[in-house]
Amino acid sequence: MHLTEFQPKTNRLEAFSDGVFAIIVTIMVFDIKLPALGSHPSPTELTNAFTAVAPRFFSFLISFLVVAIFWVHHHQLFHSIDCTDRKLLWHNNILLLFLSLIPATAAFLGNSPRLPIAVALYGGVLLLSSLSALLMYRYAALGGGLMDARIQISERNRTLRKYWIAPMLYALGIIVAWPWPIVSLAIYVVILIAFLLPERLFMVAAEDVENES
Amino acid sequence: MHLTEFQPKTNRLEAFSDGVFAIIVTIMVFDIKLPALGSHPSPTELTNAFTAVAPRFFSFLISFLVVAIFWVHHHQLFHSIDCTDRKLLWHNNILLLFLSLIPATAAFLGNSPRLPIAVALYGGVLLLSSLSALLMYRYAALGGGLMDARIQISERNRTLRKYWIAPMLYALGIIVAWPWPIVSLAIYVVILIAFLLPERLFMVAAEDVENES
Amino acid sequence: MHLTEFQPKTNRLEAFSDGVFAIIVTIMVFDIKLPALGSHPSPTELTNAFTAVAPRFFSFLISFLVVAIFWVHHHQLFHSIDCTDRKLLWHNNILLLFLSLIPATAAFLGNSPRLPIAVALYGGVLLLSSLSALLMYRYAALGGGLMDARIQISERNRTLRKYWIAPMLYALGIIVAWPWPIVSLAIYVVILIAFLLPERLFMVAAEDVENES
Amino acid sequence: MHLTEFQPKTNRLEAFSDGVFAIIVTIMVFDIKLPALGSHPSPTELTNAFTAVAPRFFSFLISFLVVAIFWVHHHQLFHSIDCTDRKLLWHNNILLLFLSLIPATAAFLGNSPRLPIAVALYGGVLLLSSLSALLMYRYAALGGGLMDARIQISERNRTLRKYWIAPMLYALGIIVAWPWPIVSLAIYVVILIAFLLPERLFMVAAEDVENES
Repeated sequence: MHLTEFQPKTNRLEAFSDGVFAIIVTIMVFDIKLPALGSHPSPTELTNAFTAVAPRFFSFLISFLVVAIFWVHHHQLFHSIDCTDRKLLWHNNILLLFLSLIPATAAFLGNSPRLPIAVALYGGVLLLSSLSALLMYRYAALGGGLMDARIQISERNRTLRKYWIAPMLYALGIIVAWPWPIVSLAIYVVILIAFLLPERLFMVAAEDVENES
Repeated sequence: MHLTEFQPKTNRLEAFSDGVFAIIVTIMVFDIKLPALGSHPSPTELTNAFTAVAPRFFSFLISFLVVAIFWVHHHQLFHSIDCTDRKLLWHNNILLLFLSLIPATAAFLGNSPRLPIAVALYGGVLLLSSLSALLMYRYAALGGGLMDARIQISERNRTLRKYWIAPMLYALGIIVAWPWPIVSLAIYVVILIAFLLPERLFMVAAEDVENES
Repeated sequence: MHLTEFQPKTNRLEAFSDGVFAIIVTIMVFDIKLPALGSHPSPTELTNAFTAVAPRFFSFLISFLVVAIFWVHHHQLFHSIDCTDRKLLWHNNILLLFLSLIPATAAFLGNSPRLPIAVALYGGVLLLSSLSALLMYRYAALGGGLMDARIQISERNRTLRKYWIAPMLYALGIIVAWPWPIVSLAIYVVILIAFLLPERLFMVAAEDVENES
Repeated sequence: MHLTEFQPKTNRLEAFSDGVFAIIVTIMVFDIKLPALGSHPSPTELTNAFTAVAPRFFSFLISFLVVAIFWVHHHQLFHSIDCTDRKLLWHNNILLLFLSLIPATAAFLGNSPRLPIAVALYGGVLLLSSLSALLMYRYAALGGGLMDARIQISERNRTLRKYWIAPMLYALGIIVAWPWPIVSLAIYVVILIAFLLPERLFMVAAEDVENES
């Protein structure tokens, strides 16, 4: 096969990625196992069991939603792409590499939710994930000529500007983790909510930021 | 890409969901590991090993069948839908979030099958799962205009009424868990059998309930 | 949707099944973890580590090949089917239920390879898996009218007769597990080899059995 | 079904393989779990935790990239194949069998990075994986008549020659593991980098080797 001809449809890239997304999302729940209790545990035992599990559940919930957002945006991107090439495959592999680190760092965070290094590592993985998603989008939209020609350049640039918000805020979160890990966690939740809001609202907010800067 | 245009085919949503369903269903079996026994264990050792595993196996079996039912209904729903939209993606993500909590609560139930809180938590996750499946069906059938137009409104409403049975019975199961956890488990099994029965029989039963109310 | 109309294509059933097959096959390897050793372990430590792992590796290898055979036959069956129906979905779900018990019983066998109950349980799961595969084939080929009409009835019956060999031999394996667990394992390996042989050879053998009986 | 007619499309083989690839790649990260630390661990505790995790992270990273390379080449191969047959299914199953051993041997390597047997076992699994990928390519390209006729024989042979490099270098890595495990690891990394380099550069290097030999 002439390697210059290797421009397959995106279906296998999507299937492989869907598999990785599905596993990441499902397997994280294994860290919120509750301990075996007898049929008549004391109130203290119960409280302890649930208190121990609470930060892990929080960490699972955040991470599930973060990965789901990455999946929705991945889906949106590949909806506007017909063919892929070797470079895009590797952009995608790098994204999946960082995403696959989420369960491990989420578990560490769930075990030590006030430890600056745990908060920063979690943010670091999300920073790298959102940065590699951004670079993949940029390659597809501007570099590789792979995106549907009907999507205007101005629109692509707007999406790119929006995508810059996440890694910049994660970087801020990592920096403030040492004095105030709680503030970092709040920043991660704010990013999450911003990306969960209906796109239209979000775009307005992003344009405001853009106009102010 | 104009976001108003984002109405992709359902194939990626289905692939991602199939991955999550497949993992949930397969991974639960890991909680029914039997202990390593020598080549000549005493009858007591054997009995203890199998007695310890029995409730976990029961919990696995129920959960496998519950998730398989969700999968069959998910399949049926998306068979009658051509395109999806952002809202439906998130309805689906929320459903998968609750379904992905089944293994953890099933494991807790398998370890403490007579503990009211374990029985109630398991029922709670199934309640939230069936409720979010119901809301997803309602959005697809009534709100989003995504469903095949040949399916009549009366038929959609009949399916919706049927779907209400599950969360209502799960709620009942949760309430009775404190005095009688065994009764709750019996209710969960009844719901399971009702949804496993051939659709035709079930519809008759559902219509009876409907006529009486 | 009229339920009598629910005859979807087989692609989702295949995707869900492929997910379950892929997970079963991959996750079993987790039981053959080698212990952490220093950089200069004594020969005894090394020998012990590998001796402990050997039966688990054997159990993994057999199970991987068994599941791969099920996958190949599943693939062959659905290659000759265009549409599915609710009954076939449940035949498939039951098959996946039994297949998903393979890792747990394989792990038990790997830990206690000479324990009759472990050998018999493993054989029991394979017996139930092969029996439900047989029943699914029979429903698709004879009952449901789902199979490609170009495949002649005589050919379908021949495949069915072949499929009976596996559950009958597994039943034999279970029976002899109590006096001679090693003989049971040998029977399982023989079944495996028979199904791994090129189809043509196998068919001849099956016809010989058929003619003799 | 006439078995001679069993030449299905490659989509199920690809879906099953994508599932296995996705699981292998994602599940390895479970070995790099960080221990639970309090909110004020001593510097020594932190250093110990990260020192313990470092070789496992290195092992994960190498293995992720190796499996991703296998996936890209698998993708490339099946991009040039329309139909499959029983033999190709089994070539693929054997490849997946060896690939599925990567997480277990990677974990062993991560725990004992300087132990010759751990280094050699890891290399052995990669040797068998790359050899079975090579044999699968050879069957598809030369034996089975399955490859797109537009791909010239000279090109197929060039790819085959390139594919021989990996198993030969892995064999070298295994041999030198006993005196110098670090050198083996360096060889594995060199193979990795060679296959990560842009194809064009790599082809030049391969042709140089070819001309010299």
